[in-house]
Amino acid sequence: MHNPIITLTTDFGYRDPFVGIMKGVILDINPAATIVDITHDIGPQNIMEAAIAIEMSFKFFPHESIHVVIVDPGVGSVRRPILVTTDYYYFVGSDNGVFSLIYNLSESLNVIHITAEHYFLPQRSSTFHGRDIFAPVAAWFSRGIDISKFGDPITDYVTMPVPAPVLVEKNILEGEVIYIDRFGNAITNIKTKNIDELCSTPEGKPRALVKGIEVPLKNHYSEAGDEGLYSLINSFGYLELFVYRGSASSNFGIAVGEKVVVTLG
Amino acid sequence: MHNPIITLTTDFGYRDPFVGIMKGVILDINPAATIVDITHDIGPQNIMEAAIAIEMSFKFFPHESIHVVIVDPGVGSVRRPILVTTDYYYFVGSDNGVFSLIYNLSESLNVIHITAEHYFLPQRSSTFHGRDIFAPVAAWFSRGIDISKFGDPITDYVTMPVPAPVLVEKNILEGEVIYIDRFGNAITNIKTKNIDELCSTPEGKPRALVKGIEVPLKNHYSEAGDEGLYSLINSFGYLELFVYRGSASSNFGIAVGEKVVVTLG
Amino acid sequence: MHNPIITLTTDFGYRDPFVGIMKGVILDINPAATIVDITHDIGPQNIMEAAIAIEMSFKFFPHESIHVVIVDPGVGSVRRPILVTTDYYYFVGSDNGVFSLIYNLSESLNVIHITAEHYFLPQRSSTFHGRDIFAPVAAWFSRGIDISKFGDPITDYVTMPVPAPVLVEKNILEGEVIYIDRFGNAITNIKTKNIDELCSTPEGKPRALVKGIEVPLKNHYSEAGDEGLYSLINSFGYLELFVYRGSASSNFGIAVGEKVVVTLG
Repeated sequence: MHNPIITLTTDFGYRDPFVGIMKGVILDINPAATIVDITHDIGPQNIMEAAIAIEMSFKFFPHESIHVVIVDPGVGSVRRPILVTTDYYYFVGSDNGVFSLIYNLSESLNVIHITAEHYFLPQRSSTFHGRDIFAPVAAWFSRGIDISKFGDPITDYVTMPVPAPVLVEKNILEGEVIYIDRFGNAITNIKTKNIDELCSTPEGKPRALVKGIEVPLKNHYSEAGDEGLYSLINSFGYLELFVYRGSASSNFGIAVGEKVVVTLG
Repeated sequence: MHNPIITLTTDFGYRDPFVGIMKGVILDINPAATIVDITHDIGPQNIMEAAIAIEMSFKFFPHESIHVVIVDPGVGSVRRPILVTTDYYYFVGSDNGVFSLIYNLSESLNVIHITAEHYFLPQRSSTFHGRDIFAPVAAWFSRGIDISKFGDPITDYVTMPVPAPVLVEKNILEGEVIYIDRFGNAITNIKTKNIDELCSTPEGKPRALVKGIEVPLKNHYSEAGDEGLYSLINSFGYLELFVYRGSASSNFGIAVGEKVVVTLG
Repeated sequence: MHNPIITLTTDFGYRDPFVGIMKGVILDINPAATIVDITHDIGPQNIMEAAIAIEMSFKFFPHESIHVVIVDPGVGSVRRPILVTTDYYYFVGSDNGVFSLIYNLSESLNVIHITAEHYFLPQRSSTFHGRDIFAPVAAWFSRGIDISKFGDPITDYVTMPVPAPVLVEKNILEGEVIYIDRFGNAITNIKTKNIDELCSTPEGKPRALVKGIEVPLKNHYSEAGDEGLYSLINSFGYLELFVYRGSASSNFGIAVGEKVVVTLG
């Protein structure tokens, strides 16, 4: 790891000095680290949102990048700190299910329960594990210390139930909104391949239904001719609901959990 | 370009992982790049605001810096990706007028329509050009690839009408507010030189009028003795309306577009 | 200073390009600098909040780090720019008391009034000292220029009255809330050692009182069994009021300045 990259994804926000402090800890241990913020505005204690954010992001970084994700409603409780290795990336965080979407994506998977306390900050608090455990472990690991030094592998790591689209009838797929972005676009859990399975029959074009509204499928945002609700396959391969130059979320009252049905018209 | 700097100015906000993803793409192509955020809180799809932000900022960076600006209401439509070279800086973004304030400032100007798709990400989406086109092009360019490899020069690039102050009568200058900053200071489009032209006559001191209120001209924020509306020439050379330890915008209801008249008293 | 770190703590916010501009100025002078944001969301002109943020943060950075703090209600007025050296760190900012909490922590202390204008930007404004004075001074200093070149030592630097906990009666300690974090946790000015002084008598366990509510002391957030108001010693050694998975601030209407009494029960 010559030019190690450590990314940070947290629910710490931008107002408090907590993220800056973690960067200080990392640079004190490895001055050569390149630290990249993914986001610090994960909803407080929203593990699902963090799981989606890191799944969208991790693979656009150079191989060997170390992704630190900290969103932990149970901070100070029994959640184990873990270090995860996949085919090309590393992940550091709590064993609270935040890496559930990563576990399925890799051929090789190794989950280590971090127990080597000499890699933690010497004076450890019970409330700021980002500073005291995750930042120093990521920094020491980025210096090339072998993963086996941090603890032993576990297989009973926590996985979070992730809502998956369901084929409720032949050619009727039911999914839901899992993420609203800054622009009010509503990202669903329906992927291209789910829609392709519907389309394998030659019966027609797929169309989405949300709140009883028919939502035509477009290729670009700018193909929408008016301020109605439209959909497209977004840049991450997910079906996304949008309003051109507007907010699907606020114009149509769409929130995370909203049901979305795709049929062949 | 030994120590290449790439700056980012977008309307992506700080909540979603989009900016972090762009940084991953850049570092994957050029691990030596230094990436600097200018702001990601440009109002959604507000091209004028982005044009002002980059005009305020670009020249404080080292020569050869590459400024990436992404604010595009027409993402996915026919806006061409462009690479702009000026006397000392480079700019990457959409041909939507966002560089209008830059075009006027440089002796030498070269605008390239980026068409070399082998510098884009291989699997390109129609909705996230920041990740798929602008980040990788900026990163490859920062590695020293000649500009001619990215595409051919164009001369019909888009320029945006920028509100300019007008001399409505002899010694009556009419401008407008173009930007409100975090503190509620209202920056106008009236520059020192515009006021100097008024002052070339020996008739008196310049004074501003906003909403029928006379706005005295001060040298420092702290020269204002009360919570009234005052003005000064700000650190970018523009006439700015302010309330000392308060907000000109909220205390006096001043928004972008508010007319400001300068006369000789 | 081989790998110099410059941290930035300001009230500039994330919307305007001001912070990015400061980074450009720093990198233009010292391309080798590593710049770390601590926070830019200090309440506008809230010197106390900035003083607390830098006191929480500075010592987690590598020795020799240069901490720039800019929160200045009197920008443009007579506040002197200062360069402060302590045992292991450097600080750059205005002489407005923002380093008051630092002054007490260091054996060695040297406060320099920065007067060497050739280290400022050549065209200096009266309103953006972050760009024109503090960023360039920090950058030149990070290149190893001797501190004596920047100006002469002063001893009449400004200190801010910092609220300290008071022993109002034997074993009745009165402090107050000094900071609310993103999660609504209310950090008080009562430190472990203050409570330990109470506890040196063998009379009982310490308990906090806020707004007439008894606030039990816990070790972890997750030890709170319900949505009541609890307290713990936080990761910085301060007594902190919290609601598990909730906001002490909004659920119980606690703001900065709220009185907190600790007694032995």
